[in-house]
Amino acid sequence: MLGSLVRVGGMTLEEALDIEDARGATVGDELSRIGYAGPVPLPAAAPAAFVELHVEQGPVLERQGVTIGSVTGVQGISWTEWTLTGQSNHAGTTPMSMRHDPAVVAAGMVIAVRQLAHELGDPQVATVGRIDLHPNLVNVVAGRAVLTVDLRNTDETVLLAAEARMAAAIMDLAEAEGVAAVSRSLARFEPVTFSELVAGLVESSATALGHSVCRLPSGAGHDAQMFARVCPSGMVFVPSIGGISHNPAELTDRHDLVAGCDVLLSVVMALCETELPGPWDSPADLAMVTP
Amino acid sequence: MLGSLVRVGGMTLEEALDIEDARGATVGDELSRIGYAGPVPLPAAAPAAFVELHVEQGPVLERQGVTIGSVTGVQGISWTEWTLTGQSNHAGTTPMSMRHDPAVVAAGMVIAVRQLAHELGDPQVATVGRIDLHPNLVNVVAGRAVLTVDLRNTDETVLLAAEARMAAAIMDLAEAEGVAAVSRSLARFEPVTFSELVAGLVESSATALGHSVCRLPSGAGHDAQMFARVCPSGMVFVPSIGGISHNPAELTDRHDLVAGCDVLLSVVMALCETELPGPWDSPADLAMVTP
Repeated sequence: MLGSLVRVGGMTLEEALDIEDARGATVGDELSRIGYAGPVPLPAAAPAAFVELHVEQGPVLERQGVTIGSVTGVQGISWTEWTLTGQSNHAGTTPMSMRHDPAVVAAGMVIAVRQLAHELGDPQVATVGRIDLHPNLVNVVAGRAVLTVDLRNTDETVLLAAEARMAAAIMDLAEAEGVAAVSRSLARFEPVTFSELVAGLVESSATALGHSVCRLPSGAGHDAQMFARVCPSGMVFVPSIGGISHNPAELTDRHDLVAGCDVLLSVVMALCETELPGPWDSPADLAMVTP
Repeated sequence: MLGSLVRVGGMTLEEALDIEDARGATVGDELSRIGYAGPVPLPAAAPAAFVELHVEQGPVLERQGVTIGSVTGVQGISWTEWTLTGQSNHAGTTPMSMRHDPAVVAAGMVIAVRQLAHELGDPQVATVGRIDLHPNLVNVVAGRAVLTVDLRNTDETVLLAAEARMAAAIMDLAEAEGVAAVSRSLARFEPVTFSELVAGLVESSATALGHSVCRLPSGAGHDAQMFARVCPSGMVFVPSIGGISHNPAELTDRHDLVAGCDVLLSVVMALCETELPGPWDSPADLAMVTP
């Protein structure tokens, strides 16, 4: 979503081009290397509207037996990296009572994060997807653990509460083990509500084409949430088989893909006939569609 | 301890030379590369006795204010690698109820292993020092976790019980999460009891030289435990400052190092005057001392 964020002026182009990956390669250098560094000044003029077609990446449509999802908005996302520093030591000779083991605190965090999601209930999700121990050896009590916490909710108030409870739990766990805990925000987006105009057109278009349709929020982040800052935006979802995503087994039935494309076209054509709020009403500004 | 294990016939030379590291380099090729591949056939004749001087790598001597440790034996060691296979999925769109997250099982294992050590009490130690999640990304529920469990005890019966309880706990955790758990033994050594002859000589030598001395088991594995299979063996420990080991801060006071060397020399000289049980009684076979 970096491109759409820069496109709408949420981050400067220079800042985006300077971002480095883990090996030190920058976005700007890599875009030049593959011939994708374009000449258009950014931020560019906002489009009249933005509609995005995407696989759901979750199980809701399949579970409900519905072909088209009219997306109401995007969950707020909170990514935090925690660095836990204890004392590296010999796993055979260090009595349990003398240990300051960040792996134990990290494990307690994983359990606490899972527990937090259960207590807050749907749609709260909470994930520890990355854990790095150092030195990460069988016979050494770890000296340092780095892990990430991904929290998402459609309700900003609940998301803020989840963040606060997670931080409190971690500080308690760290103190009990004699381990230092330091956090760093990796990303934070508030929940986004999509345009009622677009959501309604997705519903009416799907129904007119004979497809079942329901409204649902998106659990994943999408470019449309960036464009929602500057123009009426929305999304069309089609089912993901088994709700599987971020996995090589991710798959959507070809008939559902066709249905999604038909609905997208129908929505864009309807938008062309609609008086839109922005200063941009030429059809050329419409239908910036990302796959 | 690989060299001492092969030296005493506990593993064939060929098997040892074929061991590969994570990048595929073999022990044999690397020994040749650095010029350390010697011509002596192995296993070689056992020495008359084996005495090893080492830093304690633990806190016992410093806590008791004692300079010399006469080591009674080595803890039994059990290293197990567990591979947990769940389902990789999107951290934002996958409801908590549909997750099969091996990171949660791994975290439960870390907590269970810590709990196990507390329930069994000293000298049981239990450590999860290595955790590898795959794909190890902030926004992906892990599909696979690999972790190691290091269990040690001076009592083989208790060590066996610890292994059984750990395995049962893991299978319960894995079943509850819908995750498959497979184990692989990385190393398993029964507890070793050192020679009373050598342990007594360490005590009497230390006392004669004016050093305080006490008996204690070793939490770490040492070459002497391999030689204990074929000849009277024992160890001299000196204090580790703060009990710190497997850490760049590992340190022993220089006076303690000198005291340890004096005791080692005294023990070896006493062994030269002793009738030893083996067929090797020439002084040339004595005093295979490793640093």
